[in-house]
Amino acid sequence: MNSTEKPDDKLTFDECWELLADDALGRIAVVVDGHPEIFPVNYVLHRRNIVFRTAGGTKLWGAVTERPAALEIDGYDPRTEMAWSVVVRGDTAVIQDQEEKDAVDDLNLEPWQPGAKDHYVQLTAHALTGRRFKVAKPDIWNTRLSDRRRASFE
Amino acid sequence: MNSTEKPDDKLTFDECWELLADDALGRIAVVVDGHPEIFPVNYVLHRRNIVFRTAGGTKLWGAVTERPAALEIDGYDPRTEMAWSVVVRGDTAVIQDQEEKDAVDDLNLEPWQPGAKDHYVQLTAHALTGRRFKVAKPDIWNTRLSDRRRASFE
Repeated sequence: MNSTEKPDDKLTFDECWELLADDALGRIAVVVDGHPEIFPVNYVLHRRNIVFRTAGGTKLWGAVTERPAALEIDGYDPRTEMAWSVVVRGDTAVIQDQEEKDAVDDLNLEPWQPGAKDHYVQLTAHALTGRRFKVAKPDIWNTRLSDRRRASFE
Repeated sequence: MNSTEKPDDKLTFDECWELLADDALGRIAVVVDGHPEIFPVNYVLHRRNIVFRTAGGTKLWGAVTERPAALEIDGYDPRTEMAWSVVVRGDTAVIQDQEEKDAVDDLNLEPWQPGAKDHYVQLTAHALTGRRFKVAKPDIWNTRLSDRRRASFE
């Protein structure tokens, strides 16, 4: 990611894709019975689609062919004291084709958590937005555990 | 957080609240025009409600008095090689009362990102779920940047 002098910056498409390719853990938001649901997923990029495996159950993925979803990733670069966030909006579809599933498996999309992950779900991006900004209190990042990220995105 | 021998564990209410109190960055999912939206927020706990400040705009918070939302936090403990995730489901309401806003400010809910954060939004929990599990590939966590978290939650 290129450095920037601006305090709050929109990311280019290329920067967004680069960050998506470099990350592996995102949070997916979907609508179930009119209510928002959110859950973390491991994902890989496959032909510029987000692909993840999920147990999810029939409620989420069984009967529905397409479902609007949004995936968010974020992070912090301590060198530049910049935080960033990328959101992919699009439609999900369950992957049925076994060759497609095998291709995804080849990308090392492994479920690290115990339990069956029967559904291979693909999120096709219709919109891609990202931003990056200088955090005002970088010291808070450094005093926390390494896996806690402290920057205000809102 | 207590250690556990089980590979995949539901967290108790107390453990969920403890993790929520100890964290400050979550992702909020809401439904806008039938589509899911997701964005990261800094939050504080105020009387067991999640409170965050947001620009958000009239589209999200201007006209609506209550809006279903879900907040997710997650993390990883390298000592135990356990990852965890907590989800709060409930309704959001815009805080209008100035004394209430002042009380929230006293909790150090500062916008670290540049820009006005006009709305104080409160998420009242109706449901609280959390889980913790042993990651199968802890080495992946250790070889990445400290701000990247690698565990499959799905």
